[in-house]
Amino acid sequence: MPRGTADNTRNRILKAADRLFYQNGISQVSIDQIAEQAGVTKKTIYYHFDAKDTLIAAYLQYRDDTTLHWLIAQAEAAGDNTDDQINALFAGLTGWAQSSAFEGCPFARAASDLAHRPGHPALAVGAAHKKKHLDWLIDLAQRAENAEPDLVGKQLLVLIDGAIATTLVTTDPTYFDAARRAALLLLGASQ
Amino acid sequence: MPRGTADNTRNRILKAADRLFYQNGISQVSIDQIAEQAGVTKKTIYYHFDAKDTLIAAYLQYRDDTTLHWLIAQAEAAGDNTDDQINALFAGLTGWAQSSAFEGCPFARAASDLAHRPGHPALAVGAAHKKKHLDWLIDLAQRAENAEPDLVGKQLLVLIDGAIATTLVTTDPTYFDAARRAALLLLGASQ
Repeated sequence: MPRGTADNTRNRILKAADRLFYQNGISQVSIDQIAEQAGVTKKTIYYHFDAKDTLIAAYLQYRDDTTLHWLIAQAEAAGDNTDDQINALFAGLTGWAQSSAFEGCPFARAASDLAHRPGHPALAVGAAHKKKHLDWLIDLAQRAENAEPDLVGKQLLVLIDGAIATTLVTTDPTYFDAARRAALLLLGASQ
Repeated sequence: MPRGTADNTRNRILKAADRLFYQNGISQVSIDQIAEQAGVTKKTIYYHFDAKDTLIAAYLQYRDDTTLHWLIAQAEAAGDNTDDQINALFAGLTGWAQSSAFEGCPFARAASDLAHRPGHPALAVGAAHKKKHLDWLIDLAQRAENAEPDLVGKQLLVLIDGAIATTLVTTDPTYFDAARRAALLLLGASQ
């Protein structure tokens, strides 16, 4: 198989897995369903991913790249001012939470689905994603000249994950605005 | 069947469902497994709960009662001072997050598992639970004489749900301490 074709097929499988795993939950989707959605055979899926657990980890790796890219793009579109970046980031998250595509944080959902399977390869991908997200938030707190950027970076991550989790349960997106206001206050405070 | 016996059986089923649904996820546990854990027949389960979905909603109702009772008891054990109550609440949550029983917020996990099933009876139970939790946090903000208790109550709920979600993915419980410090700052600020 020419390399380009193999890459295209792999990507098609990943996109199908991404859609189905995120919409329906990783434990509720079979390899058969992903094969059907991607328009490939089960054998082709197992040629690219040796087991469903490998595909789950690859799905979260794909989400890791696309999510971080999207988050940073939301913030940086607002320019260099860190308060503007926070406002833009939460505006982007609120728009997502109000869309029909919103089913919560894919990393939290996977961690929840795999809570009884410590050591699953997807759990490490989720933890690494949050670390990268945290590093970017610490950098933002440093740029804001906050006196405790490591602490405030963690607080910003908790506010983002919390607004997503609370909104998923309550279906009330005003929690994002409450979280945004808390983020601005914490970022501006030199504790 | 005498009423007392029926209540005991119902409770035994609920406790078995609570353990299995929380540990393994509601979509990954069968009625057969719950029957085995509770030491009853499937027929007995369907005598008390007409369908698995009814049992899922009853499980979250049971969690609603026990969780709120536990949260308020943690806080009130610290006395009347609202800062002490926040510290005690987060100390309790941190202890839970560090225990082997920790698998994240049961309401967020159920919302995640049922994200593709709008209208499921358990989703309303989860939303009602967060509303009761929010009301208690608004009351705490009022007792702290915060100028915007409705806003700060929401921010406290986001910090609690966020610390739980971020810790589930990262397995790093220091997010609870970051959230606790944010909660104290927000509660003390008259914005």
